[in-house]
Amino acid sequence: MASVQQLSTKHVLGIKYLTAADVELVLDTAREFKEVINRPIKKVPSLRDITIANLFFENSTRTRISFELAEKRLSADTVNFSASSSSVKKGESLLDTVNNILAMKVDMVVMRHPAPGAHHFLAGKIDASIVNAGDGTHEHPTQALLDAYSMRDALGTELRGKRICIFGDITHSRVALSNIFCLQRLGAHVRVCGPPTLIPKHIGSLGVETSFDVQESLHWCDVANVLRIQLERQDTKYIPSLREYNRYFGITKERMARLDKPIVIMHPGPINRGVEIDTEVADSEHSIILQQVENGVAVRMAVLYLLAARRNEA
Amino acid sequence: MASVQQLSTKHVLGIKYLTAADVELVLDTAREFKEVINRPIKKVPSLRDITIANLFFENSTRTRISFELAEKRLSADTVNFSASSSSVKKGESLLDTVNNILAMKVDMVVMRHPAPGAHHFLAGKIDASIVNAGDGTHEHPTQALLDAYSMRDALGTELRGKRICIFGDITHSRVALSNIFCLQRLGAHVRVCGPPTLIPKHIGSLGVETSFDVQESLHWCDVANVLRIQLERQDTKYIPSLREYNRYFGITKERMARLDKPIVIMHPGPINRGVEIDTEVADSEHSIILQQVENGVAVRMAVLYLLAARRNEA
Amino acid sequence: MASVQQLSTKHVLGIKYLTAADVELVLDTAREFKEVINRPIKKVPSLRDITIANLFFENSTRTRISFELAEKRLSADTVNFSASSSSVKKGESLLDTVNNILAMKVDMVVMRHPAPGAHHFLAGKIDASIVNAGDGTHEHPTQALLDAYSMRDALGTELRGKRICIFGDITHSRVALSNIFCLQRLGAHVRVCGPPTLIPKHIGSLGVETSFDVQESLHWCDVANVLRIQLERQDTKYIPSLREYNRYFGITKERMARLDKPIVIMHPGPINRGVEIDTEVADSEHSIILQQVENGVAVRMAVLYLLAARRNEA
Repeated sequence: MASVQQLSTKHVLGIKYLTAADVELVLDTAREFKEVINRPIKKVPSLRDITIANLFFENSTRTRISFELAEKRLSADTVNFSASSSSVKKGESLLDTVNNILAMKVDMVVMRHPAPGAHHFLAGKIDASIVNAGDGTHEHPTQALLDAYSMRDALGTELRGKRICIFGDITHSRVALSNIFCLQRLGAHVRVCGPPTLIPKHIGSLGVETSFDVQESLHWCDVANVLRIQLERQDTKYIPSLREYNRYFGITKERMARLDKPIVIMHPGPINRGVEIDTEVADSEHSIILQQVENGVAVRMAVLYLLAARRNEA
Repeated sequence: MASVQQLSTKHVLGIKYLTAADVELVLDTAREFKEVINRPIKKVPSLRDITIANLFFENSTRTRISFELAEKRLSADTVNFSASSSSVKKGESLLDTVNNILAMKVDMVVMRHPAPGAHHFLAGKIDASIVNAGDGTHEHPTQALLDAYSMRDALGTELRGKRICIFGDITHSRVALSNIFCLQRLGAHVRVCGPPTLIPKHIGSLGVETSFDVQESLHWCDVANVLRIQLERQDTKYIPSLREYNRYFGITKERMARLDKPIVIMHPGPINRGVEIDTEVADSEHSIILQQVENGVAVRMAVLYLLAARRNEA
Repeated sequence: MASVQQLSTKHVLGIKYLTAADVELVLDTAREFKEVINRPIKKVPSLRDITIANLFFENSTRTRISFELAEKRLSADTVNFSASSSSVKKGESLLDTVNNILAMKVDMVVMRHPAPGAHHFLAGKIDASIVNAGDGTHEHPTQALLDAYSMRDALGTELRGKRICIFGDITHSRVALSNIFCLQRLGAHVRVCGPPTLIPKHIGSLGVETSFDVQESLHWCDVANVLRIQLERQDTKYIPSLREYNRYFGITKERMARLDKPIVIMHPGPINRGVEIDTEVADSEHSIILQQVENGVAVRMAVLYLLAARRNEA
């Protein structure tokens, strides 16, 4: 898989720092890897000589496993680090922790960290390429890339001119911000829709529409990306009861039944069934929630592969 | 290792769902793998293109490591998931969690889960093969298979007509139920022996004898399979003190000294030395406790290999 | 990499049990492995048929990852065990836990355990080779070996006649004791320097000098090995406040500025910046702290390789 094109950056810290050409390159490369993982032999030797450290300073299941599988299918060596059993507890600084791991000849770092600035801070100080696997409420770039990949796949077209509405808790979501940047790079129209208390006041400055009307937004959009109500991230005073949330802002089967055209339903998971989305909607034929998960491995393979290729040429 | 025979089932949910021919097939295949793991080169490439997810919703050391080594010696790729760092805590349903992992192109699932119905529920909903690595107090089929393998090996004969007594806490043991089903498939006579409070009232309906007399049962049997007193699973009011347990129901060196023939001593571990079994008995020449552990890897290799072979033919 | 020489021991329990020739052999072998890990292809197939269990009964990040990378670069198979999710909690004895893991055909054990006697106790009972990865406050032999390797590398000479001062909390440090033994094997002069409350009374019997004067000791030495103040290991009544510690016993930039020659600065990590060492000193050109980490992987590869070679010849 010879890549003449290259990413414009040595890290993937956020979609904010990728060009439209970078995003296209990742999505095109992911298409090739999706073929790989659907073959009987799901592996390629591309990163056989690369060691990747997965540093998860916040718990994660699906993102960690998705990256791990991506790494294994590229034949990389991996080491895993989770904050719960770490020297971070012994008062070591983030930079010292990461520098120690890099001193062991690690080539790339996949990192989830609760502090929005953590990845950026490190990128200025270390030599290895960093992939942001989620930073607090800021960005989660590989999620946005797999979402864009999945939308293109489901619609069967480019996203230019398509209408994408992100529903739910925009304020506490790193997925929302990365999605907005990524979809704008690809020329889509982006709207956010949710309770006024969960949409940041400044969101309009990013060039997205805001709506508080779920039914009207469902009529408007081609794709509904429904975010998780992240109970663990929010102060309960800003959110109504879960039952009320479902009634006023949930993507319910009743609201879906009123539409006169099919729309694509997405969710980054984990799903709170009966809260932000009804089971009948999550499991409907228009839902591509599990395809998102499958595409996630291919997109992460593409990101790791492109960063390694850039490294080798450097 | 060409297998013309096949398992009758695509999952191993419990011995209850295996035929006698299935059990024989696993034990015969395990014999071949035991040769593999005793060679200087302990690996075979059989599952080189298979990805296995180990999902442990309950803690486990020996079972998890035994499966992991079995998978590595078959050259499978593995991903590990433990409930302690998982999205299960975020309120995701079991089916959603497993479906997400499977969407990443996982071929088989090895799962330990506290709920007896969990494996069954999943088997009806997912495409991948499931191996039950323990479900609450219900079944632990690979333990029963390795126990049967170890008994045949120690006795040097088939188990038809042999007398096996399972000692201890039958009520709270998933090992007991799987052992009973497995030994019956192989034609053995099965007895359970323990305190009346730790033997279920309905156990006779399974076709096993019940006894409360440890000394007489030791005289009766060819093999004594001594279960662990699972302090963590029981209400203390049903069990006497540990000292009393040892005195009235323990496999003590005094009771063993009164026998007029050698019997095979087994224990699934972890051992409470001085409670259900005396150290002198656990470490005696008739004990095959560590052989059980060794055979466990071979038996699990056989189960995974046979399920993968069935999958490929399907 | 044919090794005609061999270690005199089948375990690496402590530097105390290694001869001077053993130490030299490890350091020379490590030099070859350091070349390996600096090549584009960082792996050798040396331990392709070896299975290693990493048993960490105490938390560790850097040591565990360093051993794991050493094992992977030697192409060994590995299984990991940490006390937090283990049957140890179910009351199993250490010997039973380890025997169970070894019964699964594990060839070597890398173990960290809080009890100083644990490794010794096991070595008398099991067949596999044991590498001590830290035992309470007693020994941490691979740390001492990597420290010696790093000193030789930094000074560009043998250590015979060189002056090494270990600064800080000697009482609670397993690194100090292993360093003393290792440096003495190599013919260095060793001094310890720290607060009187953190230097054991009997330390003189080991043939090392004692000093309470940090500035004078810095003038005296060629290499300063600065230990971590292990807050988690000590009773607070024996230690002044952290600010006071830095003032009276820290390796500060002021104290360094008063020296009339460069000295090598080392620290086993994790660093408490501003406590036992100033940031300016830890990050100065004379600091080899990150080289220590890099050398750690090579030294651990050497130890594992030499033990496996000895095993094969036996």
